[in-house]
Amino acid sequence: MTFPTIGVIGGGQLARMLAPAAEALGVRFAVLAETADAPAAQVIHDVVVGDYTDFATLKAFAETVDVITFDHEHVPPEHLEALVAAGHAVRPGPQALIFAQDKILMRRRMDELGLPNPRWAEITSVSDAEAFAAEVGLPFILKTPRGGYDGKGVRVISSLDEVGEWLREVPVLLAEEKVDFTRELAVMVGRSPMGQTAVWPVVETWQQDGVCKEAIAPAPGLSGDKAKEITEAVLTVAGALDVTGVMAMEMFETPDGFLINEFAMRPHNTGHWTQDGSVTSQFEQHLRAVLDLPLGSPEAREDVSVMVNILGAEHEDLYQPYLHVMAHDPAVKVHLYGKGVRPGRKVGHVNAYGDDRELVLARARHAADFIAGVDTDPHPRMPEATASAAATPTNLTAPNNPGEGA
Amino acid sequence: MTFPTIGVIGGGQLARMLAPAAEALGVRFAVLAETADAPAAQVIHDVVVGDYTDFATLKAFAETVDVITFDHEHVPPEHLEALVAAGHAVRPGPQALIFAQDKILMRRRMDELGLPNPRWAEITSVSDAEAFAAEVGLPFILKTPRGGYDGKGVRVISSLDEVGEWLREVPVLLAEEKVDFTRELAVMVGRSPMGQTAVWPVVETWQQDGVCKEAIAPAPGLSGDKAKEITEAVLTVAGALDVTGVMAMEMFETPDGFLINEFAMRPHNTGHWTQDGSVTSQFEQHLRAVLDLPLGSPEAREDVSVMVNILGAEHEDLYQPYLHVMAHDPAVKVHLYGKGVRPGRKVGHVNAYGDDRELVLARARHAADFIAGVDTDPHPRMPEATASAAATPTNLTAPNNPGEGA
Repeated sequence: MTFPTIGVIGGGQLARMLAPAAEALGVRFAVLAETADAPAAQVIHDVVVGDYTDFATLKAFAETVDVITFDHEHVPPEHLEALVAAGHAVRPGPQALIFAQDKILMRRRMDELGLPNPRWAEITSVSDAEAFAAEVGLPFILKTPRGGYDGKGVRVISSLDEVGEWLREVPVLLAEEKVDFTRELAVMVGRSPMGQTAVWPVVETWQQDGVCKEAIAPAPGLSGDKAKEITEAVLTVAGALDVTGVMAMEMFETPDGFLINEFAMRPHNTGHWTQDGSVTSQFEQHLRAVLDLPLGSPEAREDVSVMVNILGAEHEDLYQPYLHVMAHDPAVKVHLYGKGVRPGRKVGHVNAYGDDRELVLARARHAADFIAGVDTDPHPRMPEATASAAATPTNLTAPNNPGEGA
Repeated sequence: MTFPTIGVIGGGQLARMLAPAAEALGVRFAVLAETADAPAAQVIHDVVVGDYTDFATLKAFAETVDVITFDHEHVPPEHLEALVAAGHAVRPGPQALIFAQDKILMRRRMDELGLPNPRWAEITSVSDAEAFAAEVGLPFILKTPRGGYDGKGVRVISSLDEVGEWLREVPVLLAEEKVDFTRELAVMVGRSPMGQTAVWPVVETWQQDGVCKEAIAPAPGLSGDKAKEITEAVLTVAGALDVTGVMAMEMFETPDGFLINEFAMRPHNTGHWTQDGSVTSQFEQHLRAVLDLPLGSPEAREDVSVMVNILGAEHEDLYQPYLHVMAHDPAVKVHLYGKGVRPGRKVGHVNAYGDDRELVLARARHAADFIAGVDTDPHPRMPEATASAAATPTNLTAPNNPGEGA
């Protein structure tokens, strides 16, 4: 048996960050990228530039690799079914991926599994929306079930007039109650085709203007019981859907427990801390899982690990401020994606670790925001501000563009 | 200022292991590789296949990058001088690299700096050798000052007859006393053009049949005074030679102190533990140093970190045993180089870390030797065997082939 080749569909930063893991594991790694200067296409040897919505392109790429996996969830499900029917190993398989692609199917399946959903309804008419509003009140959240992005995917509905308008464009929408959560949490699991699983510690996450901005591992003050409940829930989902690779489950924490928000069946922004903070990174684990290799330890290496995103802001040139950050703190780990700067765009992240949570957070925030050119004084989320920040409707999670994988 | 491009001469495993650091730092990275399937050429996007002894090839490659650095020390010094004269940034510069290329120049410079050398002599005649033997006794060590490899570079001289024979092939040789050392040590430093330095903890190393096999960080039982003395010595060398990038200094520990064995001015096998065991790996530090970026922290992350090389042995297929190692120990970190197996060839290494040195050592040895197909029971270097193993003449350090960088 020789070393296999993994083919990743999508050339974004997630594919780019899979490359170091492939290099260490000794496996071959190829990417089907949207453009020749996509983040992964800049660095990986075996790059095909092509359109992942074109079946012939996908099929030709699949012929050159042993296992297909993903940088994003936007490949048409029917194409994936056809690849599987033609005998290609697609991991995660379309039968699992569909639940990350279609939010209504996901809500229905979570109900079937008895897992904690926010109240939700499938909306095909204004009267459906009226009935839902009567149940949960206004405002509520309305989402396109599939492929929402560019701000079109999620809205806060304060008046039912908006619903009818949107239904003329999209015939089926998903309504969800606006959850009054205390904070957001996320958990990641790796699962191999033979069913081995490994769950990383639950993390606390924070979204700024609907975009993931910070993750803290492990989630501060989370009770052992709640962590166990969350771990069991993510294992239930991974098993029931026969997920292969890594999967992220994002949640709202409530005073009573937690409610499931979303899934991603690939490495995820809330797992970037694992690159520097756990024995096995989410990127290495994803490769091990899709190859059906034994999984690595998901154990945290440090008391506290923090990830803060670098979101495009004032600086177009990141190199000079980056130099200053390195001089200021020789122990922060900067990860850049080779992307041009646009306002709010994820262009990199900073990981930091240590034993004093407030200090580690302050170091990572300073580094990320200094590189981007954001004024962080005062930081919008100082410890005492946690409660009020959490009151903003951050289940308005940011859309993922293809190649902008969260 | 935009992100610069680093050009590495040599496509071996060291260049391959620089790639993840370049990907995270966001800098561009190009390789001039000996062959299209060299370890780095398999994984890196920007690859030129060409002969590094040909000046036109070097010059054309230099034109495409901002800084030139190295996977090995075999580029002809006159070519490097010509690149510098033409205005290219070459780091480390030829004025430093020459001391890693020419062992007689190195010995002379160490004497000038007052640093501890073994007794040595330049040998151009049998009578030189007779005089040296009269001083240090037989056997002694004889080396080609430059470019020794394929077993031709180092010999143990028990009879002076051998000297005359070798001198007919190589007109100048370096004789060194056979040091009666207690163990071998190594230390690595990073140094930037503006003179910033960072020294990692001193490590204990072990050579098996003249090939680096293990490194333990930090060196067990090394006194604080001796560690300080070694750190000061490596800083003296780095400053005096105006080294840029990372440099390894290998030493013999003696009852009284230490003696300098060799230098490498690039990432080195004795620093591979830093990939998983220190805040900044030697690969990231090398890139930061040659770019004149502020250096990262060289602090160890763990009580004990161990590196054990995977040397080609029984297994031609490494994938199956590797799978078993992953199942057996989900916390060891396996690094493979994408090389075909040949007996004794470095095809990868295993890093492990923890707080119990004997356990960490046993885990890393088991993993490395199981992958290679070496019987490790009993291990040739169990704790109680340390003294006898150290009595073998292991200043017979292994030659480096181009592209086989140690």
